[in-house]
Amino acid sequence: MSPKNNAKAISPTRAEDFPGWFQAVVKDAEVAELAHVRGSMVIRPWGYAIWELMQAELDRAIKATGAQNAYFPLFIPLSYLEAEAGHVEGFAKEMAVVTHHRLEADPERPGHLKPGAELAEPLIVRPTSETVIGKSFAKWINSYRDLPLMINQWANVVRWELRPRVLLRTTEFLWQEGHTAHADEAEAREEMVRMLGVYRDFAEGSLAMPVITGEKSAEERFPGAVTTLSIEAMMQDGKALQSGTSHYLGTNFAAAAGIEFSDRDGGRQLVHTTSWGVSTRLLGALIMSHSDDDGLRLPPTVAPSQVVIVPILRGEASAEVETAAEALAAELREHSFGGAPVRATVDRREREPQAKRWEWIKKGVPLVIELGPRDLANGELAVRRRTALEQKPTTVARDEFVAGVEGLLDEIQRRYFDTAAERLESRTARDITDLEGFRRWFEGDEGDSTKGGFVRAPWSEAPESLAVLEELKASVRCLPLDQQLPDGARCVLTGEPANVEAVFGKAY
Amino acid sequence: MSPKNNAKAISPTRAEDFPGWFQAVVKDAEVAELAHVRGSMVIRPWGYAIWELMQAELDRAIKATGAQNAYFPLFIPLSYLEAEAGHVEGFAKEMAVVTHHRLEADPERPGHLKPGAELAEPLIVRPTSETVIGKSFAKWINSYRDLPLMINQWANVVRWELRPRVLLRTTEFLWQEGHTAHADEAEAREEMVRMLGVYRDFAEGSLAMPVITGEKSAEERFPGAVTTLSIEAMMQDGKALQSGTSHYLGTNFAAAAGIEFSDRDGGRQLVHTTSWGVSTRLLGALIMSHSDDDGLRLPPTVAPSQVVIVPILRGEASAEVETAAEALAAELREHSFGGAPVRATVDRREREPQAKRWEWIKKGVPLVIELGPRDLANGELAVRRRTALEQKPTTVARDEFVAGVEGLLDEIQRRYFDTAAERLESRTARDITDLEGFRRWFEGDEGDSTKGGFVRAPWSEAPESLAVLEELKASVRCLPLDQQLPDGARCVLTGEPANVEAVFGKAY
Repeated sequence: MSPKNNAKAISPTRAEDFPGWFQAVVKDAEVAELAHVRGSMVIRPWGYAIWELMQAELDRAIKATGAQNAYFPLFIPLSYLEAEAGHVEGFAKEMAVVTHHRLEADPERPGHLKPGAELAEPLIVRPTSETVIGKSFAKWINSYRDLPLMINQWANVVRWELRPRVLLRTTEFLWQEGHTAHADEAEAREEMVRMLGVYRDFAEGSLAMPVITGEKSAEERFPGAVTTLSIEAMMQDGKALQSGTSHYLGTNFAAAAGIEFSDRDGGRQLVHTTSWGVSTRLLGALIMSHSDDDGLRLPPTVAPSQVVIVPILRGEASAEVETAAEALAAELREHSFGGAPVRATVDRREREPQAKRWEWIKKGVPLVIELGPRDLANGELAVRRRTALEQKPTTVARDEFVAGVEGLLDEIQRRYFDTAAERLESRTARDITDLEGFRRWFEGDEGDSTKGGFVRAPWSEAPESLAVLEELKASVRCLPLDQQLPDGARCVLTGEPANVEAVFGKAY
Repeated sequence: MSPKNNAKAISPTRAEDFPGWFQAVVKDAEVAELAHVRGSMVIRPWGYAIWELMQAELDRAIKATGAQNAYFPLFIPLSYLEAEAGHVEGFAKEMAVVTHHRLEADPERPGHLKPGAELAEPLIVRPTSETVIGKSFAKWINSYRDLPLMINQWANVVRWELRPRVLLRTTEFLWQEGHTAHADEAEAREEMVRMLGVYRDFAEGSLAMPVITGEKSAEERFPGAVTTLSIEAMMQDGKALQSGTSHYLGTNFAAAAGIEFSDRDGGRQLVHTTSWGVSTRLLGALIMSHSDDDGLRLPPTVAPSQVVIVPILRGEASAEVETAAEALAAELREHSFGGAPVRATVDRREREPQAKRWEWIKKGVPLVIELGPRDLANGELAVRRRTALEQKPTTVARDEFVAGVEGLLDEIQRRYFDTAAERLESRTARDITDLEGFRRWFEGDEGDSTKGGFVRAPWSEAPESLAVLEELKASVRCLPLDQQLPDGARCVLTGEPANVEAVFGKAY
């Protein structure tokens, strides 16, 4: 489908209904869909290709720190979680529980199957792998010579979701989880900070998504962590999306799993551990950061196709145009962007050119080119840049376009980053000093995605300040690492002396 | 640990106890281990790095055919399997069944947790994804323009194993599963054959593992398939390991999942589907093909390190030796093998050089180099090729080694292939013509891994011929694609006229 006149390809638009717009983009761009299986999602080829590019980029960066990939079991025995849970009274978590290991014909309901062969101990489908990986660490680590041990896993995890939302909150999702063990606190903390830096560089460099790096408040910390750091990105509706976390776990997990080592003096010590992760939620963040009312907009770094050529096949010149399109793609692939050949493809499917063009626009391809018999004769191309979608394409000399493609992609990548950075800057209030202003900021954005955003202000960390946040559906996103707390600053919520500078926001 | 005198690094040796040897190699080379979680395995960093290289290679080959990767849900509703199971009477399969979605404190057993919140419909952890992918195909395919649809998924799957064996038979394993839909039988069959070719080229080219390509007999066919093709490799004990399968499913799955399309004339038709897959079992095949009594032996194509340099650090020259080792590795990385930079690393860990050397030998690194102060002074290297492990290394001029490294790796890769091919050839009996000879062949190899192998002979396909196979613990591995059935040939098992030529063997 192509939009009529000045209409946009995506309905509803961002201004009309931001959450509805997000779902429509994800669907129309064929990124993912909530599956027929309740709470689960299918990541479609276009979405998965974006994820693969993200994965490849991040995997390189993770390995460059010295971490190695490995794979651990999907199932966790119930007893492992009991050991971790400490005081299990009051414990209740939404997790998938495997209780049987056979499926058999149901004698009472002909034509139906039922679970048979009950397990002596139920198994939990991993919501995260701390406990299983901890068991292996305890086995593998004996001496200081085995440290640091730095392991990363790419895997699927499951957390039962009662209100699933595609890409943002699904029962099953994909992620990477890093787990490292160190001889002392200083080295473990260094690792935690290093990995946050890897995530920041990845978000900003590859996803063109500027982030705030900071520490989580005590309330928002990962259970069991001593310190949790995160990167927080601002979506186009002003809401925060936590896009990666890195934890220093002290010796808490080591004590629970029994991970000890002999130090240089022969003494036995507990290791200090960290963990860090990002997930397919980042695909959601990417979309809500850059996309517009015509669909997805992809930074070239993670665009499965960076240039798509749609040949306009009419009458006699068809074969010639098709050959020219393939030659153009081949020539573009000889150029490189970000260290890899430019991903240029020709869309030769049997469809209307206009339908094809709109499909690629909705899918966020940075450069969509039409090439017809007249363009061919004139040595020209009809080029549409996805950054600023004109109703009419720009006519560009073919050879000039080819020679400049790298610069063009680079410009598009920077444009997305700059636009998002400008938004993060302009929609972060730094001049709110009291509760009244704070309330006004967070109440004023209801139902209007163009208002609201973050508040960066002094905070007392007082427990009584949390109630008003809850009431406003806001939270402390982080205590930014670049603290700029003026002397004698007062808490924006309570008026009491402030301890720290905080970033407040509504969050996904 | 390094072996004493003429002893071997792995105990037991292949001749002493082949299955025991396999487990010892997998453990000592730190490839994988059966996990503390029953029936599951942990793939350790060295094993996972091999798997990643295999994955990357195969992924490229799969994408080159036009297939796209995607991701589908881990959980399958019970009703999907009921629809597939047809006559469910007598159906019983070992599968992990999720029955609850909450874990909560057990009021009756203080300090313990229990499953809460029972699901209305149990979920099965995917043993394979035909049914879920079929549902998506039914949604995505409308017209002939949507065909062919070629999808591949890299995922974990679960089949409950009562007698798990590391890498060969575990409850959870990793694999890729391709699923394609086509407009007609001819195109679907072409796809099935094409993918078998991809697997054969991968096994032979990357894994240096010669295979027989063939069709499965009716008894060994994938349930629901019209035709199943496989590649069969011969392990060092003469047993077969099915290393990849490709199925033509006719319209059977399309009918069950309702996958229809409008053809060019507007009529509605069922699509013809294929599926094809390989798994982490291939890691087991790789090991049992090439490894020896000193541990793993890796073809350079899938060796995470192709050259490991162990610096011998003694006294004053230490810094100089270490610098020279790094310089050597850097220089080697400027050379390429198989289209990628040579993977050369320096082992700088704080351990004894001899222990390091044996670690890399056991891990199968193709070239292990020692570099000490005297080597440095002489411009020489002490090189050990993993193909034919000498107790003493070969002394080679440094620059000559660097210049020739690509050729050396190439030679090693070929050597592994040739050795395996020679085994496959010499241990495939082609001259057995009657049951007596057949019995002698398959009875004579008990407990002796140097005897036995395949029998290639005419077969009648008669049901009564299967009993003797069962008795001998042998099976029809495949009907080789290059049929060489002489006129008037008689079945090796029954003496009746033969229909086909078959390869018989014992199998993993």
